[in-house]
Amino acid sequence: MKIALAQINPTIGDFEGNARLILNAAEQAKGLGAELCLLPEQCIPGYPAHDLLERPCFIDKNLEALDRVVNSAPDIGLVVGFAERSGSAWGKGLWNSAALIYGGRIQSVHRKSLLPTYDIFDERRYFDPAREVQVAEFKGVRLAITICEDIWNDPDFWSRRMYDRNPVEELVRSGAELIINIAASPFTIDKRHLRGEMLKAAAVHHHVPVLFANMVGGNDDLVFDGASLAFGDDGKIWARGAEFREDMVVVDIETGSGDIRPTAVDDDDAAIEALVLGTRDYAHKCGFKQGILGLSGGIDSALTAVIGARAFGADNFEAVLMPSRYSTTGSVDDAIQLARNLGIQYKTIPIDSIFDSYLSAFSSHFEGLHSGVTEENIQARIRGNILMALSNKFGHLVLSTGNKSELATGYCTLYGDMAGGLAVLSDVPKTMVYSLCEAVNRDGEIIPRAILDKPPSAELKPDQRDQDTLPPYNILDAVIEKHIIAKFDAQALAAEGFDPELVNHVLDMVNRNEYKRRQAPPGLKITSKAFGHGRRIPIAQRWRP
Amino acid sequence: MKIALAQINPTIGDFEGNARLILNAAEQAKGLGAELCLLPEQCIPGYPAHDLLERPCFIDKNLEALDRVVNSAPDIGLVVGFAERSGSAWGKGLWNSAALIYGGRIQSVHRKSLLPTYDIFDERRYFDPAREVQVAEFKGVRLAITICEDIWNDPDFWSRRMYDRNPVEELVRSGAELIINIAASPFTIDKRHLRGEMLKAAAVHHHVPVLFANMVGGNDDLVFDGASLAFGDDGKIWARGAEFREDMVVVDIETGSGDIRPTAVDDDDAAIEALVLGTRDYAHKCGFKQGILGLSGGIDSALTAVIGARAFGADNFEAVLMPSRYSTTGSVDDAIQLARNLGIQYKTIPIDSIFDSYLSAFSSHFEGLHSGVTEENIQARIRGNILMALSNKFGHLVLSTGNKSELATGYCTLYGDMAGGLAVLSDVPKTMVYSLCEAVNRDGEIIPRAILDKPPSAELKPDQRDQDTLPPYNILDAVIEKHIIAKFDAQALAAEGFDPELVNHVLDMVNRNEYKRRQAPPGLKITSKAFGHGRRIPIAQRWRP
Repeated sequence: MKIALAQINPTIGDFEGNARLILNAAEQAKGLGAELCLLPEQCIPGYPAHDLLERPCFIDKNLEALDRVVNSAPDIGLVVGFAERSGSAWGKGLWNSAALIYGGRIQSVHRKSLLPTYDIFDERRYFDPAREVQVAEFKGVRLAITICEDIWNDPDFWSRRMYDRNPVEELVRSGAELIINIAASPFTIDKRHLRGEMLKAAAVHHHVPVLFANMVGGNDDLVFDGASLAFGDDGKIWARGAEFREDMVVVDIETGSGDIRPTAVDDDDAAIEALVLGTRDYAHKCGFKQGILGLSGGIDSALTAVIGARAFGADNFEAVLMPSRYSTTGSVDDAIQLARNLGIQYKTIPIDSIFDSYLSAFSSHFEGLHSGVTEENIQARIRGNILMALSNKFGHLVLSTGNKSELATGYCTLYGDMAGGLAVLSDVPKTMVYSLCEAVNRDGEIIPRAILDKPPSAELKPDQRDQDTLPPYNILDAVIEKHIIAKFDAQALAAEGFDPELVNHVLDMVNRNEYKRRQAPPGLKITSKAFGHGRRIPIAQRWRP
Repeated sequence: MKIALAQINPTIGDFEGNARLILNAAEQAKGLGAELCLLPEQCIPGYPAHDLLERPCFIDKNLEALDRVVNSAPDIGLVVGFAERSGSAWGKGLWNSAALIYGGRIQSVHRKSLLPTYDIFDERRYFDPAREVQVAEFKGVRLAITICEDIWNDPDFWSRRMYDRNPVEELVRSGAELIINIAASPFTIDKRHLRGEMLKAAAVHHHVPVLFANMVGGNDDLVFDGASLAFGDDGKIWARGAEFREDMVVVDIETGSGDIRPTAVDDDDAAIEALVLGTRDYAHKCGFKQGILGLSGGIDSALTAVIGARAFGADNFEAVLMPSRYSTTGSVDDAIQLARNLGIQYKTIPIDSIFDSYLSAFSSHFEGLHSGVTEENIQARIRGNILMALSNKFGHLVLSTGNKSELATGYCTLYGDMAGGLAVLSDVPKTMVYSLCEAVNRDGEIIPRAILDKPPSAELKPDQRDQDTLPPYNILDAVIEKHIIAKFDAQALAAEGFDPELVNHVLDMVNRNEYKRRQAPPGLKITSKAFGHGRRIPIAQRWRP
């Protein structure tokens, strides 16, 4: 039997469009000789629909779309994710479900048992766990139909399990011959390899092949990478879908063979592709055709410009140079050179006369006080106001350019350089910004060398350097990532050999600046812990780690 | 036996301070002749600590603070909320627990069974539910020690239950003679009466007295109102704590008598007190001693000024008038009169010359295009920049002044009037803004009558009126609240008699402006559904209700 893994890109709440994607995939799979086609978790409503799942009429529309799929599907089996009413007298009243559809009707429905409720996942908020699991049968093959997290709890693979149940094991014990996992598993750099290892281990452990069909596309902060997979019961790879694009791969479960797409060259390339897809989908799913950014001649806005030009197309992406008295000629020239290399339009709007008008308005109020951060922030906010005005006038999406290291330490201006609709690099530490730029330039210089070589500077006062305020980025990023991701406190970081004074300074900056991050635009998540709704820290609190 | 209900105001992560509050309450309770003192849910770490609970060293510090309380408490029984490690091989590894402390040791520990995971609650993210409950015994009295949500699932009281278990019933069946509920139950206007009715119904239903000790104080968006309660088994009220301030009331369970504090005059007064407490605690717990706001002469900034002056004290609160060519003389005069009535300082910084400098910078780029929303937003963002600059220079907390109706419809400017550290009125619909202002003026005019009587206007273009763009506020607010809180879709709203075209217009505005709300400052929640982290809607989505 041939089975198609269909990685489609649904849009949350676009029930008509999503049903069409599913039916098109079904037709395509049938054309490729498949008898069964697997579609992602929650592909009818889109994922994550968040509190839209609390709206009765949203659930109704999702059930109607499922009906349309059932009634219009070609002669092929489908496994389709949707939101199902449980009918229970208590609880949330919803299940995260997969329907096995064949012959114009739903043959069986399978509910998710393990509901991730951590990081960016909130499934306990919306769904009840399955009370029991049962094996499905399709054309004589006994299937374990599982949903995403259901397969992420193997006691042999994890040192610490999050759930007491293991639905995959329960199903295999009940005689399942094939493990199916439909997923909306978001991309993170470290998950790229982990996911394959985990699925392969599951196949080998249970001596049962595993077929994993994943969602693709961006939804707000999340990027789903596709990269569907199939492994034989000996751990041999049978099929692999493309990364970061819609794709269909077909696997023959008798011969143990299938389509194997190439993967991205390395993690840096994968990260860039993730950011491009995330930016493109955020823009298009929000209805934007054109994008804009402020180009300073620094490395962050350079990388953001590369991603923006790829996401929107060079013709639909524009740069704005907003030089001040503190901008160096080099920076302006470098920015122009980059715009030319990318083939994007740029305009120049100097901010000095606007800055002067603010200084003059404040002259009596600030009399006798030193110029400092206030005056730097005023400049950044003038630039924010200019970009937003252009966005208002011409309908562009503003991409903000700050990186994760800046956001972590608050080395950025709220309503200034933080202004925009999407924070493209907010989960990219500064050191990774450099390596992504090198990857961009691998086949020829796109980002002018001078941008990579100059010492980082906000250029908001004379001869300013990031390193006047911040520790060297290689040390800073190591401290931040160990604190944010690995949850090291000050003592544990000192035990790792970091200077205790530096550690305290960095952690203090991280903690004091939660208020800025709370008002940041959505940012694309590519590491296992990004700022944003996957990291929820109170602002008014006195704990110092 | 006399039992004290101690409503204290802990700060998240301030372990030393929180332990001190608990020990002080214990001394006070002992002085009042109580043998047992009940303290709020999670009063050791503070609530809600959110992802700080995921930090091992945060949990360690919380256990050390509990130890300090155990070792230093006077000779009185205490029930104290803390975060407990479960030691389980799977799950979250934490319980939301209450320790019964007496005689220098923990007599028994009781874990929360029902973990709210909806609206602003995320307890399934952090805690495992109790596996079983057991009756505690203190000086011969058998106690049902429950935690907040544990008592909110009575099948007789609720038409739909959220959980299959009822821990209160289990404990009463096991012989409990007294129901204790320690809570961190946030204020909402509708919960003011509901909570008492529910607790009274529980006492009558089980024929067992109920003692409820609630947290007080603001934490980011949440305001805990205290208002602790005790009811006899016949439903008679035995005790009631003050609203919106730290308090201790003592109840004698033999005689069925105790302290009964007066309540706020009405819901409007309660709402004002909630907003004052929320503002004061947010500022102080964040380390701000002074506040500032932009005063336009309109009703929203007028009410925010009243709340700010009460929260900070008139001497620590300042108004900034930022008139433009579109500001009426009346508005400026009214703003000045209000500042005088409140006894607060004000300064005036006109924005016209700054506005001109922007227009001149854009002149070639906007040539031939009509002036419109872009130019209105530029003015609002100039004001945002001015307030933030003053905040940067002098260390004030900026209060933003937008109301819930504006935030719902996007009738506000991101980085403009939305700029600030706290959105005081973001959960107050415009119609409620009016009624709160009337309550403020009940005992004499504080807000000048002209401010209440003039038609609402943003004053960003000549002769502008809110009602040029928005439906009348009484209709708008009714549609918004039915949509946001009661989850009515367009069809259901039309069935209620609202004009379908108006409904579609309003719902479209609500849905299109999620991106603005995502970047709003934290706002104080006073209704059962506020914008903010209790309402999670994807931005990139195509559903129209």
